[in-house]
Amino acid sequence: MDKNYIPVKYTGVKNTARLIKEIGLENAIIELASYIEDDYKRWDQFDLSPRYASHTPDGVLELMPISDGEKFSFKYVNGHPKNFKNGLMTVVAFGVLSDVKTGYPQLLSEMTLGTALRTSATSALAAKYLSRKNSKKMAIIGLGSQSEFQAYAFKALLGISDLQVFDIDEKAIEKFRKNLAGQNFRIKLASSAEAAVAGADIITTVTADKKQATILSDNMIGNGVHINGIGGDCPGKTELQKSIVARSNVFVELEEQSRIEGEIQQMDENFPVTELWQVIKGEATGRKTQDEITLFDSVGFALEDFSYLRFINDKIKDARFTEFYKEIDLITAPDDPRDLFSFLNSE
Amino acid sequence: MDKNYIPVKYTGVKNTARLIKEIGLENAIIELASYIEDDYKRWDQFDLSPRYASHTPDGVLELMPISDGEKFSFKYVNGHPKNFKNGLMTVVAFGVLSDVKTGYPQLLSEMTLGTALRTSATSALAAKYLSRKNSKKMAIIGLGSQSEFQAYAFKALLGISDLQVFDIDEKAIEKFRKNLAGQNFRIKLASSAEAAVAGADIITTVTADKKQATILSDNMIGNGVHINGIGGDCPGKTELQKSIVARSNVFVELEEQSRIEGEIQQMDENFPVTELWQVIKGEATGRKTQDEITLFDSVGFALEDFSYLRFINDKIKDARFTEFYKEIDLITAPDDPRDLFSFLNSE
Repeated sequence: MDKNYIPVKYTGVKNTARLIKEIGLENAIIELASYIEDDYKRWDQFDLSPRYASHTPDGVLELMPISDGEKFSFKYVNGHPKNFKNGLMTVVAFGVLSDVKTGYPQLLSEMTLGTALRTSATSALAAKYLSRKNSKKMAIIGLGSQSEFQAYAFKALLGISDLQVFDIDEKAIEKFRKNLAGQNFRIKLASSAEAAVAGADIITTVTADKKQATILSDNMIGNGVHINGIGGDCPGKTELQKSIVARSNVFVELEEQSRIEGEIQQMDENFPVTELWQVIKGEATGRKTQDEITLFDSVGFALEDFSYLRFINDKIKDARFTEFYKEIDLITAPDDPRDLFSFLNSE
Repeated sequence: MDKNYIPVKYTGVKNTARLIKEIGLENAIIELASYIEDDYKRWDQFDLSPRYASHTPDGVLELMPISDGEKFSFKYVNGHPKNFKNGLMTVVAFGVLSDVKTGYPQLLSEMTLGTALRTSATSALAAKYLSRKNSKKMAIIGLGSQSEFQAYAFKALLGISDLQVFDIDEKAIEKFRKNLAGQNFRIKLASSAEAAVAGADIITTVTADKKQATILSDNMIGNGVHINGIGGDCPGKTELQKSIVARSNVFVELEEQSRIEGEIQQMDENFPVTELWQVIKGEATGRKTQDEITLFDSVGFALEDFSYLRFINDKIKDARFTEFYKEIDLITAPDDPRDLFSFLNSE
């Protein structure tokens, strides 16, 4: 062996951005959503566990592991609302995909972009199953770094391009408007959350404050809407008034995790929820009537990261995309696997 | 900002091997042991939890997180005994050190070498506190990839260079002999585990089979020895006859984790143990008499990895060692932290 390491593929932020641009954002989201859909359909094959979370005064640090018996993945992700004031991102992430048979890591990937992509793909996938078929108009409350990805995902998967949007921050609104200009969206800048949701078929809430907020209150929500609740995603952080949750047919990713982190942390432990995979697999009914409110109480789940890493790993094997990764020397490969000691002296 | 990523320092296997060689293996172990000692002394500052482990038919995949409120670290590590037959290592690892205040990762490091280093440093550190002061001779049972590191660590920290060693595999014995030739060790190749432990003051067991084995049986163990039990480190994997454990004054890293993974998985839940940090901090007595058997029932703990990453992170800040890392583009840095979307188009 002329190399004394086992190369691990590495897709950093530059290569990931270039790769997604090359594939095209809408195509990437559509393809990624089909990976997520496929993985949710084989839910029973996964070794699932709630994420590990270390909560600190400034934010949360999480590790999200999962395995299907062939591949293992985990994501490192933080959530630090105050970062923004220091010019840093609220959420950054990276992930690793490994081979279960050997335990060797195969792919290290940035996942700040990856998380934005998989979150939006999952939101739109859930809405495809849960929203009314004739949904045409979406409200977005919270125009932070996830908002444009949500807009693109709903356009890509549901054909929704009619947006009513609101943020308390003028700069965020301006950024959103600029980013989606000329992309075939019809955007109405609303002056309040209430104005944004008026007449919307789908309501996406994606605010970042780490507290119990009331982004949506009960009187704002009419019958038949689908709520895509993204921002209520850790203990003490919710966006919806409790009575809205109580009125809704609620869908979650992993019940055990969502009871701790989702909007349903406001409800008692017997409040009924359905896991999304059951609907995708056809084992449970999604929306039952045109009039009911459906709520996808999304907190983000390791399976979606697994799907993303699988998607990237497959993509960079494709001859068209092999330029979009590097190899790094993360793993030793001594000539004799028991001889790590003499490896030390080989460099 | 001319870069649109936040660089994360990366110490791969090549740079790590070069760095340790530059520092000198004995010096590196001595210095690393003092990091581990310092961290064990401030045990109360750490947010501790047992590792996450995904057990599969071929091995185990683990994530080991820990935080002291300022830095957060985790290690990814596997344990795949069958890998050896395919020319792969049983254990490979890597780790990340992060800033708790922002959640941003700062250092990504290979940790296959790192795990070997921190395990041996911890073993020798524990023996410094627990073995008889006049200990001169060490037995090593199991001459796999960890064995030479153990020998070096005990020489570096306790001045022990008199070794009696045994392995069932002739090639492992030959490798060990060759690797330590000319390094001021006096090595006796024993024909059995029993012959290796005869007259030894310290006994290190470091075998790899994932099963309940009896590497040491009761009649082989005389009074006053210190047993450094490394290989019994996951559920179903032990090395010592239960009656040896019963006769010993047992020390562990984190009781909660060791009850599941250590030699004490053989004992009932009330079997008394002392956590190593208590001895290092002076809150508990280590060895009480010259005659008692002390057992360091080591399974490896996240704190030791934290210490290792802190050690490496400090080293590469030193002007003499700045050439031993690279920077990788793991974390996005959009001009506006809320504008991840336009970042996609910036490449």
